[in-house]
Amino acid sequence: MDLDTDTDTHAHLRDKYAIVGVGETAYVRGAGKTTRQLAQQAVGNAIADSGLDRRAIDGMLSYSYSDSTASNLVGADLGLRLNFFMDCFGGGSSTEALVGLAIGAMEAGMCEAVVVFRSMNGYSGLRMGGTGAMSAAPVADEFLHTRPYGWRSAAQMFSPTFLRHMHDYGTRSEQVAAVKVAHSRHASNNPKALYKQRMTVDDVLASRMICTPLHLLDCCIESDGGCAVIVTTAERARSLRKPPAWIMGAAQGSGTRARGIIFRDDLATTEAHFTAKDVYASAGVGPADIDAVMIYDHFTPFIPMALEAYGFCGRGEGGPFVEDGRIHFDGELPVNTHGGNHSEAYIHGLPHIIEATRQLRGESSAQVPGCEVVLSCSAVAQLSAAVILRKD
Amino acid sequence: MDLDTDTDTHAHLRDKYAIVGVGETAYVRGAGKTTRQLAQQAVGNAIADSGLDRRAIDGMLSYSYSDSTASNLVGADLGLRLNFFMDCFGGGSSTEALVGLAIGAMEAGMCEAVVVFRSMNGYSGLRMGGTGAMSAAPVADEFLHTRPYGWRSAAQMFSPTFLRHMHDYGTRSEQVAAVKVAHSRHASNNPKALYKQRMTVDDVLASRMICTPLHLLDCCIESDGGCAVIVTTAERARSLRKPPAWIMGAAQGSGTRARGIIFRDDLATTEAHFTAKDVYASAGVGPADIDAVMIYDHFTPFIPMALEAYGFCGRGEGGPFVEDGRIHFDGELPVNTHGGNHSEAYIHGLPHIIEATRQLRGESSAQVPGCEVVLSCSAVAQLSAAVILRKD
Repeated sequence: MDLDTDTDTHAHLRDKYAIVGVGETAYVRGAGKTTRQLAQQAVGNAIADSGLDRRAIDGMLSYSYSDSTASNLVGADLGLRLNFFMDCFGGGSSTEALVGLAIGAMEAGMCEAVVVFRSMNGYSGLRMGGTGAMSAAPVADEFLHTRPYGWRSAAQMFSPTFLRHMHDYGTRSEQVAAVKVAHSRHASNNPKALYKQRMTVDDVLASRMICTPLHLLDCCIESDGGCAVIVTTAERARSLRKPPAWIMGAAQGSGTRARGIIFRDDLATTEAHFTAKDVYASAGVGPADIDAVMIYDHFTPFIPMALEAYGFCGRGEGGPFVEDGRIHFDGELPVNTHGGNHSEAYIHGLPHIIEATRQLRGESSAQVPGCEVVLSCSAVAQLSAAVILRKD
Repeated sequence: MDLDTDTDTHAHLRDKYAIVGVGETAYVRGAGKTTRQLAQQAVGNAIADSGLDRRAIDGMLSYSYSDSTASNLVGADLGLRLNFFMDCFGGGSSTEALVGLAIGAMEAGMCEAVVVFRSMNGYSGLRMGGTGAMSAAPVADEFLHTRPYGWRSAAQMFSPTFLRHMHDYGTRSEQVAAVKVAHSRHASNNPKALYKQRMTVDDVLASRMICTPLHLLDCCIESDGGCAVIVTTAERARSLRKPPAWIMGAAQGSGTRARGIIFRDDLATTEAHFTAKDVYASAGVGPADIDAVMIYDHFTPFIPMALEAYGFCGRGEGGPFVEDGRIHFDGELPVNTHGGNHSEAYIHGLPHIIEATRQLRGESSAQVPGCEVVLSCSAVAQLSAAVILRKD
């Protein structure tokens, strides 16, 4: 049994489930609402978007760093009676993982319509970066090796991975700064985006250094808000008001040689490489079939690294791949057409699934012409998950 | 659609999955190990108990109050390559919920053998009670209404529910103290139990009052340790060394009229009442078919309340039901034959599933003769989940 090449496929689940509703709150700095109120509003908006009778919702999933509310409470607030609910620990990779989990629960007959939500006061409440939620976690696991030396923030923990990529492949700050250029361009036309100002490579390089080699504008923003998506069966999906975004495949992966964020033998054997194989095998498509990609963008360098892992360019080629407009909405491979966590809002990746759905419905503010298949995935060097959605 | 009487059954999953391995660390006060080390050891012991090739494990689930380690890290430590993993937020109801979730993931084809673990340094690390993990949670949801008034601990939060039961039904402290008598008797013959001394009703009543009406000995203990159980498919289960504990049914429930722990209209409409209906319908059995019950025992009064919810006695009759030895291992309805969270160890309910499995294998230190069907469930007045297991 070769654990590193074993590919697990869920091809039997292809197109059996769909995303039928998406919703969010306003994205702001200072919501003046609790995470529970934000969740109520986002879930309510997603239900309204779907056209489902709210009593049909019998599953609810959320994820957080203990900085949010509980799914069963939000369910009760909305008058729902849940047969399946979980509040999972986690961040950027949980988005797609929970969409996959929702499918699992429905496939097992545990429920028939599942809301996945994330709500956070990431600006006015417990922040993720700095000395916020990540550094509030108990000192355990890899943190035992880093906290005593003053490494507390996400930027500190992820920066060595980019340094390694620079060292191994010659990737430069100017190249990854082009990711921010694309994100800010996409956000400039997105009414919901918190930051609509377009940025240049020079703007990124001129912004202050947070943790070498990550500049301020290489880092995602901090915001308050809530997001929700609704996953249900093909049968129900077909009867609803909006065209379903069909789930072709979902996958999740860990790596046997990766230990947390920092410690790993080789950038080319991260969790995302396993997930990429699995999600393509499950969906029955490959990189050439993908019309747009939504990638969890905590820091700009992880976009090119994810594009390598998912086979859009060769190993080490991510830097040159992103620097010339290719990932703009009118480019060869549009990435994060909503503006991502860098310009629209940081609700821990869930806006990415919302945007993927809107692209397939033709509702995006940076619409990709003829967009039929979208990959949404977490980044590299962390827990990994991905889904591939297709147009109705 | 009457949400309060709708029963969701998973009867199609009956006997398709089994618990094939159980394992734990020593239960101590002061492990001198991290929660990650405790998890490695417990998972390793469960794998050894099952006889599975460890590389066959492709799913891993854990639950905690952010006081433990991550499943993907433990997986990597043991050289596993996971296709499905989640770290869920939660406590006493998560045990059975995650066994149900493991079934869901396997039913959906996401994995074929899932470890569920819980590791905690609940004595020497972050404690659950007092000013520990529960009061470290962000002030949100129902806590907004209680923290400002000094309510921080689990005992404070659960005591009003017992007071209500006393008020509504005349339940007395002497009656629920009999639960501790049974637990301590069971633990007295359990080599793994942390507290082996037998207790009397007078001992409980003479112990200091923690939060009226909960005495010290009405409260579960604090301990360090880890536990793990392995769930797999019927096909694999049949090929392994130990007799499988077949999963007849699993269910989880929330309530539309319950808001967190404290706020609820009526004790007879808690989440557990929904779960009871669902788990019996799924398993195709009723209370009369159950030979032993494992109930999450954070506080003694919740044992009689759960026995009411699961139909072993009438509404309000739990107090008299437990006071006369009926729940001892040689009584009419044995409960927590390992000693429970009160006398064996407090690993958040997972020892209860381990004990249920051992009862069905004939391996318990307080073996119930002819034990063929066991219910394991969470208590009343919190998130709710249950499984029913049967002998091979």
